[in-house]
Amino acid sequence: MIERRKTRTVMVGALAIGSPHPVRVQSMTKTDTVDVDATVCQINALEKAGCEIVRVAVRHMEAARAIRKIKAITNIPVVADIHFDSKLAMESLKNGADKIRINPGNMPVEGMREVAKAAAKKKIPVRIGVNSGSLPEDKQCLERESDVMAALALRSMDILREEGLLDIIVSLKASDVRTTVEAYRGIAEKFDCPLHLGVTAAGLPADGIVRSSVGMGSLLLDGIGDTIRVSLTGDPVCEVDTAKRILSSVGLRNFGPEIISCPTCGRCRVDLVTLAGEFEEKLRGNEKLTFPDAGRPLVIALMGCEINGPGEAKNADIGIAFGSGTGAIFENGKILNTVSADNAIDELLRVIEARRSSLW
Amino acid sequence: MIERRKTRTVMVGALAIGSPHPVRVQSMTKTDTVDVDATVCQINALEKAGCEIVRVAVRHMEAARAIRKIKAITNIPVVADIHFDSKLAMESLKNGADKIRINPGNMPVEGMREVAKAAAKKKIPVRIGVNSGSLPEDKQCLERESDVMAALALRSMDILREEGLLDIIVSLKASDVRTTVEAYRGIAEKFDCPLHLGVTAAGLPADGIVRSSVGMGSLLLDGIGDTIRVSLTGDPVCEVDTAKRILSSVGLRNFGPEIISCPTCGRCRVDLVTLAGEFEEKLRGNEKLTFPDAGRPLVIALMGCEINGPGEAKNADIGIAFGSGTGAIFENGKILNTVSADNAIDELLRVIEARRSSLW
Repeated sequence: MIERRKTRTVMVGALAIGSPHPVRVQSMTKTDTVDVDATVCQINALEKAGCEIVRVAVRHMEAARAIRKIKAITNIPVVADIHFDSKLAMESLKNGADKIRINPGNMPVEGMREVAKAAAKKKIPVRIGVNSGSLPEDKQCLERESDVMAALALRSMDILREEGLLDIIVSLKASDVRTTVEAYRGIAEKFDCPLHLGVTAAGLPADGIVRSSVGMGSLLLDGIGDTIRVSLTGDPVCEVDTAKRILSSVGLRNFGPEIISCPTCGRCRVDLVTLAGEFEEKLRGNEKLTFPDAGRPLVIALMGCEINGPGEAKNADIGIAFGSGTGAIFENGKILNTVSADNAIDELLRVIEARRSSLW
Repeated sequence: MIERRKTRTVMVGALAIGSPHPVRVQSMTKTDTVDVDATVCQINALEKAGCEIVRVAVRHMEAARAIRKIKAITNIPVVADIHFDSKLAMESLKNGADKIRINPGNMPVEGMREVAKAAAKKKIPVRIGVNSGSLPEDKQCLERESDVMAALALRSMDILREEGLLDIIVSLKASDVRTTVEAYRGIAEKFDCPLHLGVTAAGLPADGIVRSSVGMGSLLLDGIGDTIRVSLTGDPVCEVDTAKRILSSVGLRNFGPEIISCPTCGRCRVDLVTLAGEFEEKLRGNEKLTFPDAGRPLVIALMGCEINGPGEAKNADIGIAFGSGTGAIFENGKILNTVSADNAIDELLRVIEARRSSLW
């Protein structure tokens, strides 16, 4: 298991964030916050996809006031995203925001103090959201951008603490993956507040999924990160799906059975791409095949040949290794039976269903 | 820049692999190797996509002999993938394979000695390709799978060296991301042979791209890895695209301009998803906009609003920050001009085209 960096616990609404708790999945609405119907609809879709905290942009007082209406008819904690103007944070606090995100790169120190004082009084946490896109000009002389970001976060943290606010979460997002990783690594040991991970402006999904996975995945493998947000120029549900895949890839969360399947090669005598796609669709769509969201996931192997097939299927809880027109179904390293490749997928699903309780 | 682990150079055909050289992109054909037409067609598609080394499955003598025909009409180095039978490696060597991959988990030691002796004589490198799917039963008592994998690689390396073979590349692939990362980290300092990275049986693209990016990305950020192969249950061209995205995300290779774009939020007043997609398509399709494959890539920012927009665009070489119906085009932090959002994409492309030489 990954040993997570020790942090204090910060409550965001009813959700606990920090190292004693699962790494959380966040996203942000892309609707105009004032359009309450559209925003609520997107929040509900995000929650259904597995999002646990959602942020909304607060660009003016009307948006801050919309938070009250949004909160009244949604379930997950709502974070107000504030830039420049502390008055927008104050109004968001008044309207029930569960967390305030400020950007210390564009908010005057006096504004930050005002927000910290009010948040501490209301027991609402604040995220210091440093972003490489808005850093103070006068600090550009420091050598590395990641150092400028870390220094700004530390200075801001002092300011908030001086006003009595201890429930602080920190993020240090750059669009460059290495800068992001360096910034978090550089700051991880300097305080015990939870860290919110993100690679900012990661781009369209094809690039953005890779950049987010590399950046956040390597930090999570080092035990760094308590809540993550994948940023993609696209549907926010895809952000949540990607965040869940990153967390399960490193074994930090279990969002259901994990399917491993080989890339196929000249040895493969079946159309594994089609078979694996069909299997995944049927598995996710079968309500009898839900598994508890705790412990390690069930691992299912779909292998195209006899070389690594039995071995991989042995490492997996259950699996199938295809031969020429046949498939050998394995459970815990032992062949259960050999079936025709044509109905191998349905047979494997049937076996998983029948043995669901013993497999899990 | 990432400081790469120091390695010796191993030549695979005319291609140098090791820390003084770029991290290479590999893939593997999914055709029956004996079907020379189909295999050559796939190799050519892979080469066009940016693949620099290709592996073919050698499951019997006829496949080993097909390597001669394949080599005669393709350009990139061809690696013979051998399991169990050293005779298949000997026949592949005779037929011009540029590298032999053996799996020490399923080849007898005497077979490995025979291959090493012949390869050393022909000055052909061998990859010791350890795979978690085929590990010797008697070693399962060791605590961690990654330790079993590392021990097998070290023992195999001794055997090959005893036969006079020094041109060795090592891989330690597991389907579990953490096991893969642990295995490579554990072995990285123990010898100076180049390392071939891979997460095996990563699965269908949606999961496989994330697992490969997390696993290989975190190793590459640590300076580990000299050639990479992404395994996906899908089109091998997608493997090559993903490998290139991983390498550029960590700044180790430059495969053309890098587009960063924000995820959009309630502040965005344009349809950035569509605009970014259109921009990317036009950029990649414009032959006048090729850039040299050296140094750092041109960074282009497409930002949905005025908050991080100008800042990110400032970090980028060139970019656009959209407002309400307008877009401000930036170059090196200075606004060049503000245009209508409707023709902002074409205008940005025009500016990049006109300034191509000064931007680069």
